[in-house]
Amino acid sequence: MKKNCIVAQSGGPTVAINASLAGVIDGVINSQTFDKIYGAVHGIQGVLRNNFLDLSDSSDEFIKKLSYSPAMYLGSCRFKLPDLSADKATYETIFKTFEEMNIGAFFYIGGNDSMDTVDKLSKYAKEIGSDILIAGIPKTIDNDLVVTDHTPGFGSAAKYIATSMREMAYDTYIYDIQSVLIVEIMGRDAGWLTAASALARTEFSQAPHLIYLPETSFDEEQFIEDIKALLPVKKNVIVAVSEGIHDAEGNYVSATSAVADKFGHAQLSGTGKYLENLVSTKLGVKVRSVEINVLQRSAAHMASKTDLDEAFQLGKMAVKFVEDGHSEFMTILTRTSDKPYSYQISHSPVIHIANQAKSVPREWINQAGNDVTVDMLTYLKPLVTGEIELCYEDGIPFYPNIKHLTS
Amino acid sequence: MKKNCIVAQSGGPTVAINASLAGVIDGVINSQTFDKIYGAVHGIQGVLRNNFLDLSDSSDEFIKKLSYSPAMYLGSCRFKLPDLSADKATYETIFKTFEEMNIGAFFYIGGNDSMDTVDKLSKYAKEIGSDILIAGIPKTIDNDLVVTDHTPGFGSAAKYIATSMREMAYDTYIYDIQSVLIVEIMGRDAGWLTAASALARTEFSQAPHLIYLPETSFDEEQFIEDIKALLPVKKNVIVAVSEGIHDAEGNYVSATSAVADKFGHAQLSGTGKYLENLVSTKLGVKVRSVEINVLQRSAAHMASKTDLDEAFQLGKMAVKFVEDGHSEFMTILTRTSDKPYSYQISHSPVIHIANQAKSVPREWINQAGNDVTVDMLTYLKPLVTGEIELCYEDGIPFYPNIKHLTS
Repeated sequence: MKKNCIVAQSGGPTVAINASLAGVIDGVINSQTFDKIYGAVHGIQGVLRNNFLDLSDSSDEFIKKLSYSPAMYLGSCRFKLPDLSADKATYETIFKTFEEMNIGAFFYIGGNDSMDTVDKLSKYAKEIGSDILIAGIPKTIDNDLVVTDHTPGFGSAAKYIATSMREMAYDTYIYDIQSVLIVEIMGRDAGWLTAASALARTEFSQAPHLIYLPETSFDEEQFIEDIKALLPVKKNVIVAVSEGIHDAEGNYVSATSAVADKFGHAQLSGTGKYLENLVSTKLGVKVRSVEINVLQRSAAHMASKTDLDEAFQLGKMAVKFVEDGHSEFMTILTRTSDKPYSYQISHSPVIHIANQAKSVPREWINQAGNDVTVDMLTYLKPLVTGEIELCYEDGIPFYPNIKHLTS
Repeated sequence: MKKNCIVAQSGGPTVAINASLAGVIDGVINSQTFDKIYGAVHGIQGVLRNNFLDLSDSSDEFIKKLSYSPAMYLGSCRFKLPDLSADKATYETIFKTFEEMNIGAFFYIGGNDSMDTVDKLSKYAKEIGSDILIAGIPKTIDNDLVVTDHTPGFGSAAKYIATSMREMAYDTYIYDIQSVLIVEIMGRDAGWLTAASALARTEFSQAPHLIYLPETSFDEEQFIEDIKALLPVKKNVIVAVSEGIHDAEGNYVSATSAVADKFGHAQLSGTGKYLENLVSTKLGVKVRSVEINVLQRSAAHMASKTDLDEAFQLGKMAVKFVEDGHSEFMTILTRTSDKPYSYQISHSPVIHIANQAKSVPREWINQAGNDVTVDMLTYLKPLVTGEIELCYEDGIPFYPNIKHLTS
């Protein structure tokens, strides 16, 4: 009797995470090894609560639409699995459900914290001698997972950020007066998304003129000097800042005090607004700040085809690797060439990926710490290429029914 | 000897204002009446400073690209023409330049304040017996010009807002906890853009669940009651608010004190942030605010084809009306049918349009003042339909060279 599978999504949404889900569904439907595929609603909590959708009869059309839809079809959770030593019962509940449902493999699509779940479930499975295979599939707009060249969701967010930055630059240039535009971009500890704003540049628009990432210390006085030096030359100075920029002592540059989320990560807001006030006070020039906010992770209408294709393949290949008997892994992308862009998909032990974070290398940031280098642009360029054909209804992009998530 | 023309753009940018410019250029190039077409850089100030681009040799390809580009190709100004009685010299300078350049017609693309310029120039031309014809072409994302059914730029902004609202709703639904999302949308005195967020609704997502426009008084206590009533039912309550909402005494609901711009309009910011803090304090629920900011007026990548086509025609027809000898007018759209959508383009005396503002009719807002009616949706729907084919380069939309605006 063939075994069944469970797939779930976790962490923050991206434009590509449903493409990975679509890849897993497609992989299982076309599998000789597995029978049913169930989606756990709200991540691992769906397993704990016996809340599943049967995805086994998904049509090709649904799988395609799902690939191009924002956020997370199965819903998410921010639930951190307790340490086994502290709470064995949770693990017993999960694996009891796995057994009752005749589960052969569990696929978890997510970022750092989700890979922690994959790692913990893998270890428990080994400890109890379970033959259930546990696979991780990467996603995070932050692009901060180690081992893989980049993560699904990043390319689409990068494309949206670069597009919006270019459009806001056009918007800024129209007045014949000096002005400063500060654009705050997501990225608590890693500056990849903020760096991607550099893709907005053209031969006649160098915006963003300044880029500040959390990988270097941010000095307010130097920041004001940087703008002061550019204003007479550029007239309109456009700045990209990561929400997570901080001073040499590690204090976040933020108007509001940082509070920690359940995983102990600081929750930031107001970096752009704080710098807007600073520029206004110090330079008395016209200044505006824009926080791109959740649009950068949910704007499916500006998805990168490369990103969605890769996300799909990373999901589909996870099924193949599991069919081959692998477990305790995350699927990864290895870049084999920048130009023409090519990559290979393989798998890597999740134990070396969970709870790690990949920062922007210092050598991809310029000496002054206010721009990125050509190497960064070479890295970024292929990830945003290609457009998708959205399904529109009455002029607005139409996405799959998520009535199981709404009330 | 054929006369020449000048065209200029003024006020805040929209996604459609370059389409109107393209229409004027196309109209003049194909005209039997006029010879050269010059673009004044930075609105009427370009005329005062003798800063012109010769647009007469624009290729079809450039005109097409121009139609699909964000912001304002010719740049803008926020320059209010002085009253003739106070400063005759400015008018003399403008008409001296017109004479030197053998100008037969002046086209000004803009909103309320720009139509004030059209009106003043028209009156001066009449006073001095000049035969230079003065034409206005409407644009404003705010949709608050009177006489015309709607204004170019509004449909594209509405499409972007509805799309983003739908995508942010998907983003919000993923967690299985109560939450509130407050989306702040532009619109100082008119709620058209905020109303357009209702186009995000589908059969399985009713977001935004609450909509507050500046046309009704905003009551903070009732707002909290509205959310409190919905939270147990909807779990995730998504709210659209106009930046210009105000209490019964006319005080803006804004975290920062309002300051006036040159035209005496209040400049607002922080309405969403203020309400976020209010909800957090009063209800203790997870809450986030998003200010869509300049993206709603510059996101050319989400332009409405209907909007751009109409903007082009309004520009092109202005040339025709001038060829027919008309002056002192603004081109207008008159809707002849909602379904199938159809309209006619004509012209109307600018004197009755300048310095007026069109609010959302009270009967298109529900009794409780927290939603819009079906009539509003019927009005909005046709304006966001149709998609454009953007030109992409390296994965990012590519727009015309604006090196004359950048430093």
